[in-house]
Amino acid sequence: MKYCSECGNPVIHKIPDGDNLPRHICEQCDLIHYQNPKIVAGCLPIWNEQVLLCKRAIEPCYGLWTLPAGFMENQESLEEAALRESREEANANLELESLYSVISLPHINQVYVMYRAKLLDLDFYAGPESLDAQLFNEEDIPWDLLAFKTIDKTLKRYFEDRKKGEFTVYNSVISKRNRLGEKVDIIR
Amino acid sequence: MKYCSECGNPVIHKIPDGDNLPRHICEQCDLIHYQNPKIVAGCLPIWNEQVLLCKRAIEPCYGLWTLPAGFMENQESLEEAALRESREEANANLELESLYSVISLPHINQVYVMYRAKLLDLDFYAGPESLDAQLFNEEDIPWDLLAFKTIDKTLKRYFEDRKKGEFTVYNSVISKRNRLGEKVDIIR
Repeated sequence: MKYCSECGNPVIHKIPDGDNLPRHICEQCDLIHYQNPKIVAGCLPIWNEQVLLCKRAIEPCYGLWTLPAGFMENQESLEEAALRESREEANANLELESLYSVISLPHINQVYVMYRAKLLDLDFYAGPESLDAQLFNEEDIPWDLLAFKTIDKTLKRYFEDRKKGEFTVYNSVISKRNRLGEKVDIIR
Repeated sequence: MKYCSECGNPVIHKIPDGDNLPRHICEQCDLIHYQNPKIVAGCLPIWNEQVLLCKRAIEPCYGLWTLPAGFMENQESLEEAALRESREEANANLELESLYSVISLPHINQVYVMYRAKLLDLDFYAGPESLDAQLFNEEDIPWDLLAFKTIDKTLKRYFEDRKKGEFTVYNSVISKRNRLGEKVDIIR
């Protein structure tokens, strides 16, 4: 951020009075421009024993497989975002079952929120951001070709929970760097 | 948003090619400025049978009671944000127990994420954004003086769950207006 989005004057980067983190501040109109993490909402769509995955037609991770998910929009709920992304990426008709994973990614300022969902029919097909949309049995999941660690963890946890016959919310952190800039790797 | 934060030129508000929602777009540098919901992270701090509440020293809801919570920052996890806010607002030393409520507020572009937490000592005191910090038994909770509906719902659910002896994640939506601008009131 270089300019104030309200008045167009250059911003400076400093710690405001009473704060403890540097912010982009407009000295012309006194506005503080906060930047906050974004939510990625999505679904884990299930048809009998199978999971619906999408092959990405966009960067990052073009050509790799993922669960349908994307940035939550203003004016929508997590549930609406998860369903919308599943329609956009896989034209999937889903019924949400329950909140399933909540994963922070502090190094990229994202929080993933995934829902277990029942696929209502087989009329799905790849949307413009997907090259393909396919159902996979557990043994056929392309583990080495998954786009994101959040997807890998959510799927692995799902298959474990399914064996146990109980689905509890999976809350975790996947981190590459802490607030002090130290490299860490917390995966719970 | 009136000006591009990268180049300082005026932005226009229109639907980009391949998108379905209007965005702030800079026609000079082609940047699309997305706006997304913010996460409010916080704690439900417990000391024996009592809950720690803070009396707000800032607007909105100056003088009303709340659980310690605030906007999640970049570079932190939900857990870190919940603990940081509890330290800032009540100087509370907490140990997180588990994710407890995940509540969307689409009409104000927020998602609340609250953790159950154990208060480790009684050395808490009001921080600069609080007028007071106090422990309350269930029967003494100032229900009519709570700052936000999210706090009311989280506390009510907590006391219900405590009677049952089981705490499951509470996922809900509190909405005043849907995406079409129609007034609705969904509270699950």
